[in-house]
Amino acid sequence: MTKNSKTLYQHGTLALLVPGLLTGTITMGELLTHGDTGIGTGEGLDGELIILNGIPYQVDSHGSANVLKDDFIMPFANSHFANYTELGTISNATSADFEKTALEGKPNSNTFFSVLVKGTFSYMKTRAVVKSSRPFSTLAETAKNQSIFETENVKGTMLSYYSPALFHGAAVAGFHNHFLADDHLFGGHILDFKIAEGAVSVQQFDTLEQHLPVDNKEFMSHDFSKDDIAKAIADAE
Amino acid sequence: MTKNSKTLYQHGTLALLVPGLLTGTITMGELLTHGDTGIGTGEGLDGELIILNGIPYQVDSHGSANVLKDDFIMPFANSHFANYTELGTISNATSADFEKTALEGKPNSNTFFSVLVKGTFSYMKTRAVVKSSRPFSTLAETAKNQSIFETENVKGTMLSYYSPALFHGAAVAGFHNHFLADDHLFGGHILDFKIAEGAVSVQQFDTLEQHLPVDNKEFMSHDFSKDDIAKAIADAE
Repeated sequence: MTKNSKTLYQHGTLALLVPGLLTGTITMGELLTHGDTGIGTGEGLDGELIILNGIPYQVDSHGSANVLKDDFIMPFANSHFANYTELGTISNATSADFEKTALEGKPNSNTFFSVLVKGTFSYMKTRAVVKSSRPFSTLAETAKNQSIFETENVKGTMLSYYSPALFHGAAVAGFHNHFLADDHLFGGHILDFKIAEGAVSVQQFDTLEQHLPVDNKEFMSHDFSKDDIAKAIADAE
Repeated sequence: MTKNSKTLYQHGTLALLVPGLLTGTITMGELLTHGDTGIGTGEGLDGELIILNGIPYQVDSHGSANVLKDDFIMPFANSHFANYTELGTISNATSADFEKTALEGKPNSNTFFSVLVKGTFSYMKTRAVVKSSRPFSTLAETAKNQSIFETENVKGTMLSYYSPALFHGAAVAGFHNHFLADDHLFGGHILDFKIAEGAVSVQQFDTLEQHLPVDNKEFMSHDFSKDDIAKAIADAE
């Protein structure tokens, strides 16, 4: 397999989480064949995942970071092979400052890209969803039952993916950020943050490889026309 | 390169045609490395393309079918490696009958698939857009300047692609059909048809490989937020 650093691989869509199609339909072992860096969630929204340097971590609803095995299954995840270009260092930066830097002055982007920030975060607020069991609830219901974590002056890595507005629903339009502390004692899906000082690097993709769980009958037979996908994702993410 | 018959390759998006980003950003030679079957349009909306058995044809605004060379360039096209499964024969079928057959009784599909119909069409109405020059017009303006063709009892091949509603904008939600007569004297983007008798075959994909023209500055700097992409595509296609 060619390690194509221009391709972002995605399994499933954010849309399928909205009505609660939370069955795991890809293994971590398979996801890692498409990249050494990524984010996702486990079956039943089992935690917030972050893959760094080929190692997949799960931040669970207790705030613990667990290394995942190859047979861990997910309804939604993405990965890519890291080949970042350094942009420079930012200091005392809010999320708005970060987005401005990552977009290099443009109001938005028409392609997918990833951003890494390694450094010290003066503030970090994350969430991790509590795993739900069958029958799975909708994303809105599940999102009510989430753990919120806050900390200050934490060293770690923020992994961010940017998706163009056209692909809202397949992914989250704009930035989608996950975090893992260097000591692995803090992490999750980022709700808010402030960077004390961090090295910023970016990697632009020219291809989205969108893989769909066509062998999953619930997904294939679901009528998405009754779900307000765009609003539900914007509210929950 | 692996000939993966589960992947639909797409270069560009239908959205970029809406504001008139009609520069050719992929060659036919490159497109053919991703499939032997496909549809698309040339730079400046230069005709309606159909690729069958590895041979790319252009139906131009005069109604002629021209075989294209490898250096022909396109703003939007898709291709895949044919590996169809026969569904059976349909007779005296309208476009609604065709869609019902292709969807095998389901109201819609959550994945991409292609359908081929080979046979005799009692009615066929197509269009081919007139190539525009720089500065390119919007899709709505260009679509006003199109040639409409109608014929009866024509033998040929209808190549259809189905895209899930979630991907409207990247592609056309629902069916997008192109036609080429066996004698190559009629073809284009299908507006309406009736099948006298035809053999129907389908090929389901599990992956959309969405390639974007990231080296094209006009595309990358365009602000799509001002274009009503969904409506413009629905009106024009």
